[in-house]
Amino acid sequence: MKYLAKLRYVGCDFHGFQVQPNVRTVQGELSVAMEQTLGIPCRVTGCSRTDAGVHALAFCVTIEADGATVPPEKLPIAALPYLPHDLSLYEACEVSKDFHVRYDVHSKQYVYRILNRKVPDPFLVGRVWHLPRRIDEEGLARMRAAAERFVGTHDFTSFMAEGTDVTDTVRTVLSMSVDAHGDQIDIRVRADGFLYHMVRIMVGTLTEVAFGKFEPEDIGQMLDAKDRTRAGMTAPADGLYLEQVFYPMETEEKT
Amino acid sequence: MKYLAKLRYVGCDFHGFQVQPNVRTVQGELSVAMEQTLGIPCRVTGCSRTDAGVHALAFCVTIEADGATVPPEKLPIAALPYLPHDLSLYEACEVSKDFHVRYDVHSKQYVYRILNRKVPDPFLVGRVWHLPRRIDEEGLARMRAAAERFVGTHDFTSFMAEGTDVTDTVRTVLSMSVDAHGDQIDIRVRADGFLYHMVRIMVGTLTEVAFGKFEPEDIGQMLDAKDRTRAGMTAPADGLYLEQVFYPMETEEKT
Repeated sequence: MKYLAKLRYVGCDFHGFQVQPNVRTVQGELSVAMEQTLGIPCRVTGCSRTDAGVHALAFCVTIEADGATVPPEKLPIAALPYLPHDLSLYEACEVSKDFHVRYDVHSKQYVYRILNRKVPDPFLVGRVWHLPRRIDEEGLARMRAAAERFVGTHDFTSFMAEGTDVTDTVRTVLSMSVDAHGDQIDIRVRADGFLYHMVRIMVGTLTEVAFGKFEPEDIGQMLDAKDRTRAGMTAPADGLYLEQVFYPMETEEKT
Repeated sequence: MKYLAKLRYVGCDFHGFQVQPNVRTVQGELSVAMEQTLGIPCRVTGCSRTDAGVHALAFCVTIEADGATVPPEKLPIAALPYLPHDLSLYEACEVSKDFHVRYDVHSKQYVYRILNRKVPDPFLVGRVWHLPRRIDEEGLARMRAAAERFVGTHDFTSFMAEGTDVTDTVRTVLSMSVDAHGDQIDIRVRADGFLYHMVRIMVGTLTEVAFGKFEPEDIGQMLDAKDRTRAGMTAPADGLYLEQVFYPMETEEKT
């Protein structure tokens, strides 16, 4: 049996998705929980490698377990007693053996949440970027103008952190939006793929556009430079959520 | 100077508001933070005694500090470095010496949040009552019919837990509502005062009305009985939030 399942997790106490020695990871916790649930060895594969502290609202995984007898629709309830409090598996179906949860991704959408007010909210600690300096309507308009310039196919080297051996740095951003409601700002970005820290550097740069350190038109030159030092700061992991993962079929359904 | 301030806190790691020996309380943490902020001895008084695990969105306190020089409007920012992550002070003004934050309360409003679905939400652990058994439209209608019967002036002995020496058990419930949105149910109740565990027993009883263990009409007999064993179960602290505190002036403004 090969299950495709959706996860929701609070990233604060995980060192990201991927198994690493001596730290708590989503893949590590889920693998143990699945072997307890199904009673047989399992192989857990994720749709992406989220960083330490990053959250997920709909992270996709496959769970391969030869001879598993739990029907997919019962997997969420069957797994409940074995999952930690900060991780839930809330949907599952069966997929064919040749489906690959990472290589078959059409696109992914992240949302980045900023709490833009002087005093932090204790209910949102670790779950938003608390930015005390006020972004006004003009600042939001500047952020939106800058966000538009990311849309399209570009070399995103300037928006990639060191520390990976990625050679193909071209990605296609399908959409990017900036929505303010009350004192929260949500930045959504959908792309066919993301480089290491790409969303966080884009968001950090947008806030510096809001505050006048950069102009919206500078984004084009930043991209052209292919030089990390030309883009803005890296926003903290706290505000970042993997919100949706699209696969070819799902994409067609939605259009 | 006597400040009136509003607090927001996540109740999970507090043993309620009131100072007790050897445990972490809101009053204890706030007193220390205020003495550090103002540099002089302070007396912190709260509008109510919330239980362990109960949350607050707008808990009112007074802070008395003779000779304090921090202007009230600057208190939230001045206190920031000294407050723990799960507690924020977000509004303050000056009040006269004869204002009493507890005795002068006109009424208080609590909201109780239920997550009504099979799989829990890791982002809401400790912050809602996760109730997996489905409450349908008919169940909600039954809860609303039962909630209406609490409105008015009654002896709430049947809805009070043991463990206090309260002698006057008559309270006036001003309003009570049940709102469902998605898989969340919010129960709001406003009263001139609350007995020990009163909201939690009312909420627990409402869910048992939803599931058919009691009829909405039974509420009247439960109240008349003045006997705790006649009412329903006590809902957990997790879902309970002190949402608003009304003082005579504020009440007039809102009506």
